[in-house]
Amino acid sequence: MLKGKPLVSIVSAGLSKFGKLEGLYAREIFAQAAKEAFDRCPNLDPKKEIQALFVGHMGESYEHQGHTGSTVADWAGLLHIPAIRTEAACASSAAALRAGIFAVLSGLFDVVMVGGVEKMTHRTTSEVTEFLAMASDFPFEQWHGITFPGLFALMATAHMHKYGTTEEQLAMVAVKNHHNGSLNPKAHMQKEVTLEKALSSRFIAWPLKLYDCSLITDGASCLIITKPEIAKKYTDLPIHIIGSGQASDSIGMYERESLTSLTAAKISAKQAYEMAGVKPEGIDVAEVHDCFTIAEIIAYEDLGFCKPGEGGQLIERGETKLDGRLPVNTSGGLKSKGHPVGATGTAQAYEIYLQLTEQADRRQVKDAKIGLAHNVGGSGATAAVHIFRRE
Amino acid sequence: MLKGKPLVSIVSAGLSKFGKLEGLYAREIFAQAAKEAFDRCPNLDPKKEIQALFVGHMGESYEHQGHTGSTVADWAGLLHIPAIRTEAACASSAAALRAGIFAVLSGLFDVVMVGGVEKMTHRTTSEVTEFLAMASDFPFEQWHGITFPGLFALMATAHMHKYGTTEEQLAMVAVKNHHNGSLNPKAHMQKEVTLEKALSSRFIAWPLKLYDCSLITDGASCLIITKPEIAKKYTDLPIHIIGSGQASDSIGMYERESLTSLTAAKISAKQAYEMAGVKPEGIDVAEVHDCFTIAEIIAYEDLGFCKPGEGGQLIERGETKLDGRLPVNTSGGLKSKGHPVGATGTAQAYEIYLQLTEQADRRQVKDAKIGLAHNVGGSGATAAVHIFRRE
Repeated sequence: MLKGKPLVSIVSAGLSKFGKLEGLYAREIFAQAAKEAFDRCPNLDPKKEIQALFVGHMGESYEHQGHTGSTVADWAGLLHIPAIRTEAACASSAAALRAGIFAVLSGLFDVVMVGGVEKMTHRTTSEVTEFLAMASDFPFEQWHGITFPGLFALMATAHMHKYGTTEEQLAMVAVKNHHNGSLNPKAHMQKEVTLEKALSSRFIAWPLKLYDCSLITDGASCLIITKPEIAKKYTDLPIHIIGSGQASDSIGMYERESLTSLTAAKISAKQAYEMAGVKPEGIDVAEVHDCFTIAEIIAYEDLGFCKPGEGGQLIERGETKLDGRLPVNTSGGLKSKGHPVGATGTAQAYEIYLQLTEQADRRQVKDAKIGLAHNVGGSGATAAVHIFRRE
Repeated sequence: MLKGKPLVSIVSAGLSKFGKLEGLYAREIFAQAAKEAFDRCPNLDPKKEIQALFVGHMGESYEHQGHTGSTVADWAGLLHIPAIRTEAACASSAAALRAGIFAVLSGLFDVVMVGGVEKMTHRTTSEVTEFLAMASDFPFEQWHGITFPGLFALMATAHMHKYGTTEEQLAMVAVKNHHNGSLNPKAHMQKEVTLEKALSSRFIAWPLKLYDCSLITDGASCLIITKPEIAKKYTDLPIHIIGSGQASDSIGMYERESLTSLTAAKISAKQAYEMAGVKPEGIDVAEVHDCFTIAEIIAYEDLGFCKPGEGGQLIERGETKLDGRLPVNTSGGLKSKGHPVGATGTAQAYEIYLQLTEQADRRQVKDAKIGLAHNVGGSGATAAVHIFRRE
C-alpha cells in the first residue's frame, strides 16, 4: 500500500454533550451524536446512503443492555442496516473505526458510520469501578481486588522509580487538560484547575490523586467515513485517515514486558506511522488516552513525541500545551472532556476532525494539517493509533 | 462484484467440545478450538502468519470478564496481534466472521482468525436467562419480565394462529436435530429424543416445551480465513465464502413488521444469495439458528427453503432430515449440539466446512458442494447469512 494514501475519508462527525446526561438511554445519546453528523453533512441522505454501522460499547452492565449495534442503528434512524458492537475495553470505538475502515476498503460499502457510546453516571462509583474492572484480568487482577486506579498507580510508581517522574509533572497534565476542557463547550468539566489544587486533592491510589483520574461520563461520538474518491460529494473538506495501527498485549499487567511503556501502543504507533509515511515530528495535534495523568506521559514516550523517560519533562516544558510545539488533548482529554469509555476512541477522532477542518473555535491549533489519535483499552491489553490528514 | 466470486477462503477450522466444561475459563476453551484449527493446518505458522483476530462473545457477565479479544488472542498463542470482540447477541461470531471478511478484502491482511466463545454452565439457569435477556429491549421487554423463551413463544403462537403450525411440527425439529446430534461426538447432548418425549416435556413458555429450547452450553469455535489466491498454500481443499449478508431490526419485538418472519434474516438472505449467485434450491446443506424449534421453522421460510407458512410442512415431510432433500442442522444445531451463544455463528460455519470437505463422518451429506449458515441475534434484531462453496 502506498504510504500516506488515504484509507478512507471522514466526511462528517458528531459528538453528544459529554457529562451527566440524566434521563437518557445510551441509544438516545448516540442519536444526538448521529444527528450532529447528519446536520453537518446535508448532501448525505443517511437512511439511503449509510450502509453499515460499527459502534464501540464497553459494558452491557450499565444499562443491562447488550445488542448495542442494532439498538443504536434503529434510534439513529438507520433501521435494517448491518450494525454490530465492537468491544476492546476503553478502545472499543477505535476498534469500531478500524472495522469501518476495513468495511470501506473491502469494496462492499461506500459509506459507513462508526462511533461509540456509554451511559455510566446513573450508576454508583463503586458499580462503575467494578464494571470497568471487567477489562482487566479476572483470575489474577479483579479477583484480588485491584481496579484501574491501582493498576495505573503501579505504572506511575514504576515510572517515578525508573525515570524520576514527579507528582508535580503528573499534576501538570491535569492542569493542561482542564485548561483545554474549559474552552470546550461539550466537555464534562469546563473548569480550570490549579497545580496546587490538583496536588492537594485526595489520594485515590498513591501517587494518583483525584485530579490524576479521568471522569465517569455519559456520551457518544460518531464519524461518517467514505471511500476517498467519493468524499467530495459530501464535503469540501474531507479529512483523510492515512494510518491505522492496532495491537494487543496480555490482559494481565503481571505478564507484560514493562510497566513504564505499553508494548501494544508502541506497535500500533509504528504501524500507523509507517502506513502514513509520517514521523512523530510531523504530527501537528494529538489526542492521547489520558485515563490517568501517567497514561498521557507514557503515551508521549510510546508515540515517539519524546524519548523513553522524558515524558515528565515534556509536560514540564509546556510543549504539549495548546500554544506549544505539539498540542495534546486540545479537547480536554479524558481528564476534563470526560471518558464515556465506549465513546472515547471516536471522540478523539472527532476532535482531530474539528482541528483539521478549523472548527475547534477557542481551542483551534493554527495550521494543523496532520493529527493523531491514541486510544488504549484497559491497562494496555489493546491500543490503537490513527493518523489523519487534511487535504 | 462478480457473482459467486470467493470473498475469502476458509483454510482451517476448529471447535472445542461443546458441553459442560468444568474448571475452564472461556480463554482456555477458545484455545482448544484454536489448537484444532492449527493442528488441521500444518502449513500455517500461526504466530507468524495470523495477522488479526475477531472473536464473538456475547456476555461479559458470565465470567466478569470483558476485553475478550486480547485475552483469547494471548491464550491462543497470538500475543500482540490486533484482536477485538464483536457482539451482536447470539450472532456475535457471524459478526466476527463478517469483520474478518472485510479485513481480508481490505487488502491489509492476508490471514485472519475469526471465532467465538462463551462459558455459561457455571452460572445458574436464572442467571443465564437474565444475562441472555440483555440482548432484548431493556425498557419495554426485560423490565417487564419477558425473557427469550417468552419472546419466541409469541412467535410460535403467531405462526400457529396464522398458518396452522402445530406443536407436533415444532417437536419434529427437536427429534431431527437430536438425531443429528447423536452422530456428532462434539455435541452437548448426543442422544435421540422421541416425538412423544419431546411433546410430553414440561412447558417453558407455552407452546414451547423443554425440548423446544436450545441448550445452555460452554464452547468455542474458530475459522482461519485467507485471501482466496493464497489459500492453496495452506490446504488442498479450501472452502470459499461466496456470499455474506447481514441486517438489523428493531431491538423490541413490539416494533417489528411481523411476528412470523424475521425481516433481518430475509434481507440478509437476499444479500447473500445475490452475492453468491445462488438460489435457495442450490443449497446442499444448511445450519440454521434453532435457538427454539419455532426459529428453525421460520428460518426455512425466511431463507426461501419453502414458502411463508409452509415451514411446518417441510419438517413434517422430512425434507430437512439428514437423508432428505436439504439436510438442515446436521451438527445437531443449537438444540442438540448446544448454544454457547458467542460461539454459535462460527460453529455453524465449522459444520459447513466439515460437510463441504467431507469430514463430517457419520453425518456426512453426500456430494455437498454449497452450504449455508444462518445466525440470528436475540429475537431477530440481528441476522447474518453466509454461503460457502467447495472448489
